Amino acid sequence: MRNKNTKISNAVIRRLPRYRRYLIELDKKKVDKISSKEFSELIGYTASQIRQDLNNFGGFGQQGYGYSVKGLLNEINRILGLDKEYKMVIAGAGNLGQAITKYALSLPHGFKLTKIFEIDPGLIGKQMEDIEILDYETIVDYVEENDIDIGVICVNPENAQDVADRLCFAGVKGIWNFSTVDIEVPASVALENVQLSDNLHSLAYHMNDLGHTQAAAREAKAKEEVMASRKAD
Amino acid sequence: MRNKNTKISNAVIRRLPRYRRYLIELDKKKVDKISSKEFSELIGYTASQIRQDLNNFGGFGQQGYGYSVKGLLNEINRILGLDKEYKMVIAGAGNLGQAITKYALSLPHGFKLTKIFEIDPGLIGKQMEDIEILDYETIVDYVEENDIDIGVICVNPENAQDVADRLCFAGVKGIWNFSTVDIEVPASVALENVQLSDNLHSLAYHMNDLGHTQAAAREAKAKEEVMASRKAD
Repeated sequence: MRNKNTKISNAVIRRLPRYRRYLIELDKKKVDKISSKEFSELIGYTASQIRQDLNNFGGFGQQGYGYSVKGLLNEINRILGLDKEYKMVIAGAGNLGQAITKYALSLPHGFKLTKIFEIDPGLIGKQMEDIEILDYETIVDYVEENDIDIGVICVNPENAQDVADRLCFAGVKGIWNFSTVDIEVPASVALENVQLSDNLHSLAYHMNDLGHTQAAAREAKAKEEVMASRKAD
Repeated sequence: MRNKNTKISNAVIRRLPRYRRYLIELDKKKVDKISSKEFSELIGYTASQIRQDLNNFGGFGQQGYGYSVKGLLNEINRILGLDKEYKMVIAGAGNLGQAITKYALSLPHGFKLTKIFEIDPGLIGKQMEDIEILDYETIVDYVEENDIDIGVICVNPENAQDVADRLCFAGVKGIWNFSTVDIEVPASVALENVQLSDNLHSLAYHMNDLGHTQAAAREAKAKEEVMASRKAD
């Protein structure tokens, strides 16, 4: 059981979903118990890091028995708040909004997309994947009246802060921001930014960087061979 | 200008796309020059961090003049490899693949989605957003023959490693993994994992955590008021 006086670090929180994914796979394979050593070999963190991370929540492991896969999974679900249901709306029905709508509908459960909001009169009143598209001007009333928990921002950079302001005013508890700008929210609202393009750009960098590294390695090798053949001469 | 002997840390690379986004907005607003102090106020990093980060690449700033917005933007584009073109394929035409296809088509330029690969015979031969869906069995030949740079993995966890293996065998330079499992690739291939659900789960945690914090604060305040009213009695 989590000690409520302890502030859990963000780094630990960020690792929990990863533990969870491995536990789900273990559970699918009918694995009942796992030691921190076995878990370490699987997930790549050190056994001591695993013990430390999981001790943050009171420690579910029994000395000599390892962790109960199902028990740990349930506990992590509870800690992450995945034992609850969340209602969400998407702002923006453009390409990004359509992509995230598709994605939201593929989420297992617990996260329910109820409506999409849009300023384009050509889209208002239509449906996207069976989800109704409403006039953006009505977003505050809708969010208030329907106790929406999460607002997902899929609009242009210019409009992202306005959407965030309205969503926060209307009382969402969390904002999932897919727009390409950083937004500001009150301290009482949780915020997660997803910069898919940052990730892609980082990939581009590493592709080229590895290219450089390989080119340098090939060069060094060629030079060595030249030197070796000179010596042989 | 980049000193090729310097290994740039991953942390710096991860910050570059963010600098880039701010520079694009500044450029749109016709700002020519920016000092590290002004940049700091905008982006939230310290001025010294900004100078340090940008010095990694030889330092574009002139003492007393600040950074040229356009110059810095071009240089960051070059460093990230965004001055080149990349061809990519998506593996998986399910909900996730459809979402990422939508997203890929909204990318400004430089990243060109050419084909989607799928095992479901009901989808092979069809089109998704004008992109042809081909038989997954042909992915290796296609990637080899068309010099595909990036493979995007949007398949089920069970199949993700198989897709990664085939893509690497066929010679992609980078893998963008959207599946919910971690995959392994040779050191010569760049890899970026996007765990959208990890991000959403982190949001769920913080929504509840902020809830707790607020509840605790309200409790403390109520207690204080009770104490104060007792004293007043």
